[in-house]
Amino acid sequence: MKTQRRIEQIEMAHGAGGKASRRLIEGVILPALANPVLETLSDAALLTIEGRRLAVSADGFVVKPLSFPGGSIGSLAVHGTVNDLAVSGARPVALMTTLVLEAGLSGETLEREIDAMARAARACGVDVVGGDTKVVEHGMADGMYISTFGIGVVDERLTLSPRNVRPGDRVLLSGPIGDHGITILLARGELELEAEIESDSRSLTPFVEAMCNAAATGIRWMRDPTRGGVATALNELARDAGVCVAIDEDAIPLRDEVRGACEILGLDPLHIANEGQFLAIVSNDQADRALEAVRNVAGGAAAAVIGEVLAAPAATVISRTPYGGTRVVDMLVGDPLPRIC
Amino acid sequence: MKTQRRIEQIEMAHGAGGKASRRLIEGVILPALANPVLETLSDAALLTIEGRRLAVSADGFVVKPLSFPGGSIGSLAVHGTVNDLAVSGARPVALMTTLVLEAGLSGETLEREIDAMARAARACGVDVVGGDTKVVEHGMADGMYISTFGIGVVDERLTLSPRNVRPGDRVLLSGPIGDHGITILLARGELELEAEIESDSRSLTPFVEAMCNAAATGIRWMRDPTRGGVATALNELARDAGVCVAIDEDAIPLRDEVRGACEILGLDPLHIANEGQFLAIVSNDQADRALEAVRNVAGGAAAAVIGEVLAAPAATVISRTPYGGTRVVDMLVGDPLPRIC
Repeated sequence: MKTQRRIEQIEMAHGAGGKASRRLIEGVILPALANPVLETLSDAALLTIEGRRLAVSADGFVVKPLSFPGGSIGSLAVHGTVNDLAVSGARPVALMTTLVLEAGLSGETLEREIDAMARAARACGVDVVGGDTKVVEHGMADGMYISTFGIGVVDERLTLSPRNVRPGDRVLLSGPIGDHGITILLARGELELEAEIESDSRSLTPFVEAMCNAAATGIRWMRDPTRGGVATALNELARDAGVCVAIDEDAIPLRDEVRGACEILGLDPLHIANEGQFLAIVSNDQADRALEAVRNVAGGAAAAVIGEVLAAPAATVISRTPYGGTRVVDMLVGDPLPRIC
Repeated sequence: MKTQRRIEQIEMAHGAGGKASRRLIEGVILPALANPVLETLSDAALLTIEGRRLAVSADGFVVKPLSFPGGSIGSLAVHGTVNDLAVSGARPVALMTTLVLEAGLSGETLEREIDAMARAARACGVDVVGGDTKVVEHGMADGMYISTFGIGVVDERLTLSPRNVRPGDRVLLSGPIGDHGITILLARGELELEAEIESDSRSLTPFVEAMCNAAATGIRWMRDPTRGGVATALNELARDAGVCVAIDEDAIPLRDEVRGACEILGLDPLHIANEGQFLAIVSNDQADRALEAVRNVAGGAAAAVIGEVLAAPAATVISRTPYGGTRVVDMLVGDPLPRIC
């Protein structure tokens, strides 16, 4: 076991979903709370309660600004948790929510966000069955923070685990990357940059269900690449599965606006957060069927097979360029985009 | 239906658990998120998933200071959620947690609170199976906020509802009131007041289980009187059940230190938050057996029958003095003790 460096104080990067987050979780949280379910470090925890497999997921939301093109903290808080359940192979059945409100927040803003939450939940076919509200003094929160908890019933046709991933498997991505992160960045108005772009915040359940109906036995692993982006999600998979994930740079769906903003800002789109996309590892023989199923769902036309699993170099993600070159794709380090969700 | 006053802006009282909280929930949250489970407004939501009754509960914690005599935010976040499940008649099986950390928080404080959470969870026999961590800029949170989500299996011997409460039923209270609220108030060091007192933060599961084993069919309703205190919990019951709850002032367990602090500060102990006590309405014929069971659990010796249910005046809580007088006990109005949990 590696010796973890002690954490002197919390920095923004500890919340960014990249290397520092992993260090916080593996160095402080896992050793204290150690149990077999927690140690899977998946987006949702799988519980067997009296013979029935359930998935539960918890997410905090501190996005800034509270509302942005394509969504707001209320809808994001629903989609984020519903999506963690979806990529764990679970159909959401109920949500709960806790609110931390700053004294002085306008009633109008609160109503708008509760309404956004309600509309998103209805569209996902799930009820918000309970919650809790706390108020802190003005200046002790940034408007409002939301935590959402979700519970879902696991699709028994699926057995998802990094351990099931094999060389030869294909990497499926549901659509263009980086829309959410770049939208938030631009919405802050701190950059002299504008683009016609909006967050991809949406429910992934319809896509995952269609894919499962078409190719359940071929699906090895799923993840929604939020904080840390596609690069971090695939690096965690490569490490946990002991494989190499090779992606083809040309195959990755990416909007010109996101590509342009990333070039100007010196960011790698593979590190930018998404809130309405998922990655799936699918067996080679069922990859085409899975892809077709996702493409046939409204909003899924840009889905693509973006790469494959190789045996070596293990625990590595590489990107192959159209000219035959390759580069190693690392996890996110530091936090170029704080409070993205 | 009453017309609700619109909320112009959020004030501390909206988080205090009293009248303003009720107005926020009934005026803004319920209308938007409307569904039958949410509308029960109980501490935990009861779900039937494929034939099995589960209870789920969500709580936010913003207590200030983070640590205090008898506990800290980490242990409080476990006990608070475990207790919401317990008074809903459920045995906790798993917890999840989200952390909002302020940049600059010391690693030592974080480790201490994760450890407190881990120890409390172990003592409650429940695993923390997952969670999420977010970091906000320095000044955008007060050290750390925690949300905890719990899932439990409902004890099928129980049928709890305000609708089951009948005139003649007894009111059982598990121990002395106000310890938590007064401890927090004194721990802030803003008052020229000291007292040998500590928070009652603890798991209620052993007490509730013992009581159910002794008198399950007699138990009509349970609640842990946290924010808003015993007065608010009983007022909500009186309203929901359409009954009068009459309590005997002399029968209520109360430490001299809490009584003294309340007298000096002009507070009613019935409005002060508790984190390790519960109220139960028990049928008259099983009340003695229930009380004896609670008293036989370590820490339960001070439990008492503190009153009874009357038919009228409906939707009212009255307190009877030893001299034959009565006074109406109202819900908490305003927020004398912000950020108590």
